[in-house]
Amino acid sequence: MKKILVTGFDPFGNEPINPAIEAVKLLPNEIKGVEIVKLEIPTIRYQSLELIDQTIQAVDPDAILSIGQAGGRFDMTVERVGINQDDFRIPDNGGNQPIDEPVYKDGQAAYFSNLPIKAMVEYMKKANIPASVSNTAGTFACNHVLYGVQYLIDTKYPGKKSGFMHIPFMTQQVVDKPNMPSLDIETMAKGIEAALEAIIDYQAGDIVKGGGATH
Amino acid sequence: MKKILVTGFDPFGNEPINPAIEAVKLLPNEIKGVEIVKLEIPTIRYQSLELIDQTIQAVDPDAILSIGQAGGRFDMTVERVGINQDDFRIPDNGGNQPIDEPVYKDGQAAYFSNLPIKAMVEYMKKANIPASVSNTAGTFACNHVLYGVQYLIDTKYPGKKSGFMHIPFMTQQVVDKPNMPSLDIETMAKGIEAALEAIIDYQAGDIVKGGGATH
Amino acid sequence: MKKILVTGFDPFGNEPINPAIEAVKLLPNEIKGVEIVKLEIPTIRYQSLELIDQTIQAVDPDAILSIGQAGGRFDMTVERVGINQDDFRIPDNGGNQPIDEPVYKDGQAAYFSNLPIKAMVEYMKKANIPASVSNTAGTFACNHVLYGVQYLIDTKYPGKKSGFMHIPFMTQQVVDKPNMPSLDIETMAKGIEAALEAIIDYQAGDIVKGGGATH
Amino acid sequence: MKKILVTGFDPFGNEPINPAIEAVKLLPNEIKGVEIVKLEIPTIRYQSLELIDQTIQAVDPDAILSIGQAGGRFDMTVERVGINQDDFRIPDNGGNQPIDEPVYKDGQAAYFSNLPIKAMVEYMKKANIPASVSNTAGTFACNHVLYGVQYLIDTKYPGKKSGFMHIPFMTQQVVDKPNMPSLDIETMAKGIEAALEAIIDYQAGDIVKGGGATH
Repeated sequence: MKKILVTGFDPFGNEPINPAIEAVKLLPNEIKGVEIVKLEIPTIRYQSLELIDQTIQAVDPDAILSIGQAGGRFDMTVERVGINQDDFRIPDNGGNQPIDEPVYKDGQAAYFSNLPIKAMVEYMKKANIPASVSNTAGTFACNHVLYGVQYLIDTKYPGKKSGFMHIPFMTQQVVDKPNMPSLDIETMAKGIEAALEAIIDYQAGDIVKGGGATH
Repeated sequence: MKKILVTGFDPFGNEPINPAIEAVKLLPNEIKGVEIVKLEIPTIRYQSLELIDQTIQAVDPDAILSIGQAGGRFDMTVERVGINQDDFRIPDNGGNQPIDEPVYKDGQAAYFSNLPIKAMVEYMKKANIPASVSNTAGTFACNHVLYGVQYLIDTKYPGKKSGFMHIPFMTQQVVDKPNMPSLDIETMAKGIEAALEAIIDYQAGDIVKGGGATH
Repeated sequence: MKKILVTGFDPFGNEPINPAIEAVKLLPNEIKGVEIVKLEIPTIRYQSLELIDQTIQAVDPDAILSIGQAGGRFDMTVERVGINQDDFRIPDNGGNQPIDEPVYKDGQAAYFSNLPIKAMVEYMKKANIPASVSNTAGTFACNHVLYGVQYLIDTKYPGKKSGFMHIPFMTQQVVDKPNMPSLDIETMAKGIEAALEAIIDYQAGDIVKGGGATH
Repeated sequence: MKKILVTGFDPFGNEPINPAIEAVKLLPNEIKGVEIVKLEIPTIRYQSLELIDQTIQAVDPDAILSIGQAGGRFDMTVERVGINQDDFRIPDNGGNQPIDEPVYKDGQAAYFSNLPIKAMVEYMKKANIPASVSNTAGTFACNHVLYGVQYLIDTKYPGKKSGFMHIPFMTQQVVDKPNMPSLDIETMAKGIEAALEAIIDYQAGDIVKGGGATH
């Protein structure tokens, strides 16, 4: 493994800042000898995927890890699966608000991330950072990218790996949001770094460790 | 549409009662001229699906709606999709605790429910019962049945419909659980009844209405 | 004990209905031989207390139990203490929005309810209704009445008892409020009835049972 | 103002660490020319107050700010009032578990903090740290100290000021606690520092700004 592409969304909704791209900016440029290529992507349907596609062609990364904001979540969550459904609760930054449309008409119903999601969670927890597996990335721009990149791999880039991590609001975002969880941005950057180490260490396959949810 | 099979799980975990089967028991035997067939199923991997399969053969329902408990959720949730993954956080009632195993090796990565999930939510809300679409049924017995029944339809019973609803704890279950949401069991039974009316009214297709989640 | 006055607020904030007065309306007119006198009070600073004062003079109840809505709480909460502070986060129905003003300038810093609050919680739980002691009634109309009635007793009506219960949203109020807890209105009325039974049974003093909070 | 005494509790419950004393340790020794005296206190009924009393005599601080852990809270909370009630939900570190006993038999029902609590909240928010006023410090060791120190001031040390801040779990404490909010320990230390600046700047009286709760 020589290169990992790490993407972060730009701000959306009513937020002036997006912890996803802020955390990505704080990552080192190299982890365990692997180059970390950072990319800001627009929170716009398909444009996000087109930019990632172009960057995959330009950079040829072995793995793609995308990061997105999940306001309201408490911990770093590694997504298990992306579904072939765009159902945008709010418009994206391009004004798109599809309801129950497929991401790709010829795609599978869903794609599982082929990153070592359980190992990523374990590495973050070992680094004293709260983390867990998530079984839904929603139906907005994040799921769109999670599903879409894995579709690209399935159809155009065999052998590459991809996945998605949702991260909570950063603390400064919740100053005027009562009872809203957050994490420190540097803590989240360290979490992503730990997850990237797991990706590098577990290329042959994930650890076998429970990470399910009863619902 | 002549018959709908409605299933409810038996108690699991540390709960002496399961609101799923309790609510199912309270349903009328007929709704809008359609017979409602009620079935208690075991919270045991595959045994749940085998009993549903046998009952489909015996009863020949037009649709199958399964109900499960989602302790901690606030409202009635209609599941959008089941995934091909068993990752049991706790053992089921048969002692099974698979980690990251497929439900069916030859199944798709996921199946979307082919019930009118948006209409089901709308009908419940019109009946003054809190409801929403959920994008994950977890990775335990409930997702197992959601995914598995749709697999049965895909492979053996073309033309039939199926789906899953999670319901919160009933109020008496949370007496000793601080800060745990619940709904009244009769309210939940009325919610399921409203959802069944939507299934009957929207056989040709779902309404087009947003019901997505940003994450 | 011959009579208990039970008060419930009218709707405030953006709510068209207030479960407090709705639950009070559902109470029986007599419990264990004690007459239950019901009174709707305005969510207006001092006017609420003046109406209660007039009714105490007219009816001469042995105890006064006031009920208020606590949107966001999960269970029936019996308040332990009222504080001498009006700090209204929103205007009341009369447009009053005091900041850090005393309820009564010559009052104590706080008054503890002299109702058997632990027994009230126990009776509700025995009736399968989630309940707990609360150590704050806030600083709005509810605390105003809790503090104010006890002040009236302290200064004008020695020997009488009073207290306050907060109740969650009723279920129909949360249909469009995601992840908001609620209870069924009839369940809440039964809870208040159980609490009234405790008030009647424990006139000599409360039970000794833990009901504290670490914070 | 020349000196402020800042106290932090030692660990209690099942926690191996207490963010209260950890954050206190990170404070500077001087803020705006005022000496900051740090003191670890035991989570033991009365022993905590005795040590504070001795330290007041030895150090003669102008103000005393005590810090305690509030696991489950989301933000820095400045307590408004302490009540004359010990009702320990869990035993303290000395094995004491009083139920509904007064802190001091000859004390008032409650004491309001005479620190500028609204200014303290504002200063923390300006520093991008989530903060709010709290109207209950519970009925455990924290309320015991909040009430008790103000009692000491009322009876023995006229002219001094005191108050209490609850702080959430620090992030490393919640690694194995699902859906539990936390803040970074350095962020919390900065928050306490900002609150201390407010105490120094607003010795003549608090700002007039809403900070109430509807319940």
